[in-house]
Amino acid sequence: MDIKEKSLLLHKTNRGKLKVESRVPLENGEDLSLAYTPGVAEPCKEINKDKNLVYEYTSKGNFVAVVSDGTAVLGLGNIGAEAALPVMEGKSILFKGFGGVDAFPICLGTTDVDDIVRTVKLLEPSFGGINLEDIGAPACFEIEKRLKECMNIPVFHDDQHGTAIVALAGLLNALKLVNKRIEDVKIIINGAGAAATAVAKLIISNGGENIIVCDRKGAIYKGKYGMDNPKEELANMTNKENIDGELKEVIKGADIFIGLSAANVMTSEMVKTMANKPIIFAMANPVPEIMPDEAKKGGVAIMATGRSDFPNQINNVLAFPGIFRGALDIRATDINEEMKIAAAKAIANIIEEDELNPEYIIPDPFDKRVALKVAVAVAKAAMDSGVAQINLDINEYQQQVENLVL
Amino acid sequence: MDIKEKSLLLHKTNRGKLKVESRVPLENGEDLSLAYTPGVAEPCKEINKDKNLVYEYTSKGNFVAVVSDGTAVLGLGNIGAEAALPVMEGKSILFKGFGGVDAFPICLGTTDVDDIVRTVKLLEPSFGGINLEDIGAPACFEIEKRLKECMNIPVFHDDQHGTAIVALAGLLNALKLVNKRIEDVKIIINGAGAAATAVAKLIISNGGENIIVCDRKGAIYKGKYGMDNPKEELANMTNKENIDGELKEVIKGADIFIGLSAANVMTSEMVKTMANKPIIFAMANPVPEIMPDEAKKGGVAIMATGRSDFPNQINNVLAFPGIFRGALDIRATDINEEMKIAAAKAIANIIEEDELNPEYIIPDPFDKRVALKVAVAVAKAAMDSGVAQINLDINEYQQQVENLVL
Repeated sequence: MDIKEKSLLLHKTNRGKLKVESRVPLENGEDLSLAYTPGVAEPCKEINKDKNLVYEYTSKGNFVAVVSDGTAVLGLGNIGAEAALPVMEGKSILFKGFGGVDAFPICLGTTDVDDIVRTVKLLEPSFGGINLEDIGAPACFEIEKRLKECMNIPVFHDDQHGTAIVALAGLLNALKLVNKRIEDVKIIINGAGAAATAVAKLIISNGGENIIVCDRKGAIYKGKYGMDNPKEELANMTNKENIDGELKEVIKGADIFIGLSAANVMTSEMVKTMANKPIIFAMANPVPEIMPDEAKKGGVAIMATGRSDFPNQINNVLAFPGIFRGALDIRATDINEEMKIAAAKAIANIIEEDELNPEYIIPDPFDKRVALKVAVAVAKAAMDSGVAQINLDINEYQQQVENLVL
Repeated sequence: MDIKEKSLLLHKTNRGKLKVESRVPLENGEDLSLAYTPGVAEPCKEINKDKNLVYEYTSKGNFVAVVSDGTAVLGLGNIGAEAALPVMEGKSILFKGFGGVDAFPICLGTTDVDDIVRTVKLLEPSFGGINLEDIGAPACFEIEKRLKECMNIPVFHDDQHGTAIVALAGLLNALKLVNKRIEDVKIIINGAGAAATAVAKLIISNGGENIIVCDRKGAIYKGKYGMDNPKEELANMTNKENIDGELKEVIKGADIFIGLSAANVMTSEMVKTMANKPIIFAMANPVPEIMPDEAKKGGVAIMATGRSDFPNQINNVLAFPGIFRGALDIRATDINEEMKIAAAKAIANIIEEDELNPEYIIPDPFDKRVALKVAVAVAKAAMDSGVAQINLDINEYQQQVENLVL
């Protein structure tokens, strides 16, 4: 049986991948009277007196809604809410397995931005956080922006920021190896969708100064004809010299290529035109922008992809479980740039200087230390940046999360 | 520690009562590649080709949303969505414990009927059924009606129909004991809220002909001044002779009193004015319309309450887990009158004729046979009444549910 058949069988045999369980016993009349009537009236009354106590007496504080409209699912595109459900269930079990977060798939029967915003906002009482997933660009930008504005719980579009955080983590380690500084390097990002936009913004937040983003028509720059609002915003943040040109031109002299686009758009010839010790993150799935052996022919120094069968996999699972773990535990009202950068650095720093090598710049997805370190770094960054609603002793908190995820 | 302190401690120690777990392993790269990318693309593609396959490849078919706006929570009233959460979590663990149903609390940050209808409708792709809970009257009637019209999954307001089903079950057994027929008896229902309305309707669906409903101002009748639409509808279905009068008048000569109103509105003197072998279901909580010892002084033949410390507890948990079990398994598009009556009869028939006695007309809430029998009866009624989307061999199905719930 190949992987396709095995996956179908796994899903069919188990009737999906998710279940809900009780945290409390329910064996007799006393159990019933404590967990349900009449005892349950007490936590209800307490929360009615002080809404914040919902975090003490219910599971809200550990519940995350994995919300999708099914418009941009994996590489499959707009397949609809029902067909997106297996992915959202998968995401939910990763949340639990790697971060101890109770996540629940919410696939919405609409692709209308207003409807999505209104619906998710109304779900706020039940959830401690919102993970947006596989919502197409440019709708995803507006949805995330509006929800962040109107909700008091963290909202995070993983396709954008999860990818950006793990890519930045890899980049930080790659730069250590080639002994370059992020402020000095020329970075080409190929692709101008949700993930590429987030990668560009996070690199800028972390000090990157020379970035050119290319879409299918080449470099984007201020005032270029035919761009939508998110691309215009991106053009205003990058390409300071307003350089025009196709990828094969602008790639010349670049230190770093980051691909979030399509299979085989890079060649070994193009790699040869890059700067000394070129770094290539080719994240298109399942076929990257350039295969590792082809990149090697061009003289690549460090290579990462989105695939598990090559070294240095850029896998979001390194970020979102720990990020939500930390954000939930500190009751953050937001997941902001400071928290994202803290997460990226925590992922990068899992690998000690003496372990670091071109085939090991990103930790293994099953390295259980990652979620722990990310959670602690994110909780600390939330406190430092003023979005935490409670204070934690970071050492005690580290102990607590260790018990949970290790 | 009293029950209040114990309940607070239970909720606080466990941080609520609910968790989400994986049904599949997640230990290594192969697990990840089957449950998530790239393998997960296969079930997505299959569902994209045929939407019905969402029931084969995902957990949707066993997911029920327990939806509330927090406007009518237990005896606490309008305490808001957050404060309602402990009840909805409690309901969810009962769904799992008694019916094997994966239920999830959805407390909505709105009390607007249009908002609630729109939001719940948009959740349809993720859930196999909707259980409305603790939504105040008259909004609950309109919300349920509109959702039933626009959704293809079963929608069930448990405060109405769960109560009605278990009350009918008790009534059927009580009538056996006093040797009267439902067609012949005079029934007074005190209270005209959501539950009372549903009880009246279900008794009528099952052959009851002589019912008078009283609200605080006495018997309601066609054209009475100051009634809202739901009460008018109720008046049109009951009280054929348009009798006016307070409870203490209309109760005279009645065979059955059903209370869904307030503490101590009945007296032993009033019971004495009822017909021979009076039946009293006094379901107000925590203090019933008349206490059992007081009713006994009046000569009550059979008595039921909503409380666990007296015999014959009318407890919804006897109905909703089995009803949803059956409705989900048969992929019913609705929970209709036929299914409700089938559920009531199944609950009643758990008690054999020779076990039946005035102190045992309703099964114990922990009698695990109940959900099984209800599920099978409901699935059969769904098939017979044309709302089932699949066919099951009822004997095989009974086996299947036995394995699940016993």
